[in-house]
Amino acid sequence: MARRKSLNDALCPVARCVDVVGDRWSLLIVRDAFDGVRRFGDLQRSLGVARNILSDRLRKLVDAGVLETQAASDGTAYQEYVLTAKGESLFPIVVALRQWGERHLFERGERHSVLVDKRTGKPLAFMAPSGKDGAAIPPAATEVRKVG
Amino acid sequence: MARRKSLNDALCPVARCVDVVGDRWSLLIVRDAFDGVRRFGDLQRSLGVARNILSDRLRKLVDAGVLETQAASDGTAYQEYVLTAKGESLFPIVVALRQWGERHLFERGERHSVLVDKRTGKPLAFMAPSGKDGAAIPPAATEVRKVG
Repeated sequence: MARRKSLNDALCPVARCVDVVGDRWSLLIVRDAFDGVRRFGDLQRSLGVARNILSDRLRKLVDAGVLETQAASDGTAYQEYVLTAKGESLFPIVVALRQWGERHLFERGERHSVLVDKRTGKPLAFMAPSGKDGAAIPPAATEVRKVG
Repeated sequence: MARRKSLNDALCPVARCVDVVGDRWSLLIVRDAFDGVRRFGDLQRSLGVARNILSDRLRKLVDAGVLETQAASDGTAYQEYVLTAKGESLFPIVVALRQWGERHLFERGERHSVLVDKRTGKPLAFMAPSGKDGAAIPPAATEVRKVG
C-alpha cells in the first residue's frame, strides 16, 4: 500500500488540488472572490475568520497563483485580492459545491442564495460529469487509471 | 456586514457544503471511497493520516449521511465504509477538483492518474458550468442572488 499512497499523493490531480484549496477557509475565500469581495477587511467580516488565519490563507492562495494583489480600484491605499485566470478556473468547483449543497443540505422549500445566469435570471444547469459523447456518466461507469 | 455574514453562513449552499466536506481529509476520503477503498486500515494506509483524525472524519461523514457502515463484503469481521446515494452525488465535486488539478498543477507531459469512461477508456469530458440552454457560462456572466 505504500506504493498506492505514493501514487495518490504525487500523481493524483485530486490530491494536488486539495493541497491548494482543500480547506474550509480557502474555499470560502474563493467563493467570496467570485462574489467580488476583494479587501482583507471585507473578507474578514464576511467570513468571520481570525485575521491571522485569513492572512495565512490569502498568502497561500497568492503563492499558488489563485489570487493576485492589486491596488484598490477606487484609488485608495487598500490592497485588493482578485482571482487570476487560474483562480477563475476554479468556477466549476465552486458551482459543484453549491449544487450539492442545494440538493442535500436544505429542507424542501428552505430558502437559499441562488447562482443565476445574468442574461436570463435563471439558475445554472445542474453540472454532471459526462463522457466524451456528452452523456452523463455515473461513478460506477468510470475508473481511475493509475500511472506506472 | 453582519447581515452579509449571516446570509453567507446560513443561506449559502457553498458554505453548508464546505461545512460537510470542506477539509483535506474528508475530500480525500470521499475520493478513495469512489475508488473502492472501504476499510479503515486501507484508508489509513492510502492517506497516511493519523488514526484519530481518520476516525473523526469518518464519524462526521457517517453522521452527515455521506458514508454508511456495512459488514465486510468478504464475510470477515471488518467494517466497511461505503458511499450513500448522497455521498455518490459528490461525484461532480471530485471530478471538478480533479480536472482543475490536471489543468493547473502538472507540468506539460507530467504523468498523472486519469479518470476514464470504462466503456470507451477515454477521459471524461471537461465539466463546465452552463446556463439552462446548455451553453458554457463564465463567472462574470453569473451572479449570486441573496435571499431576503
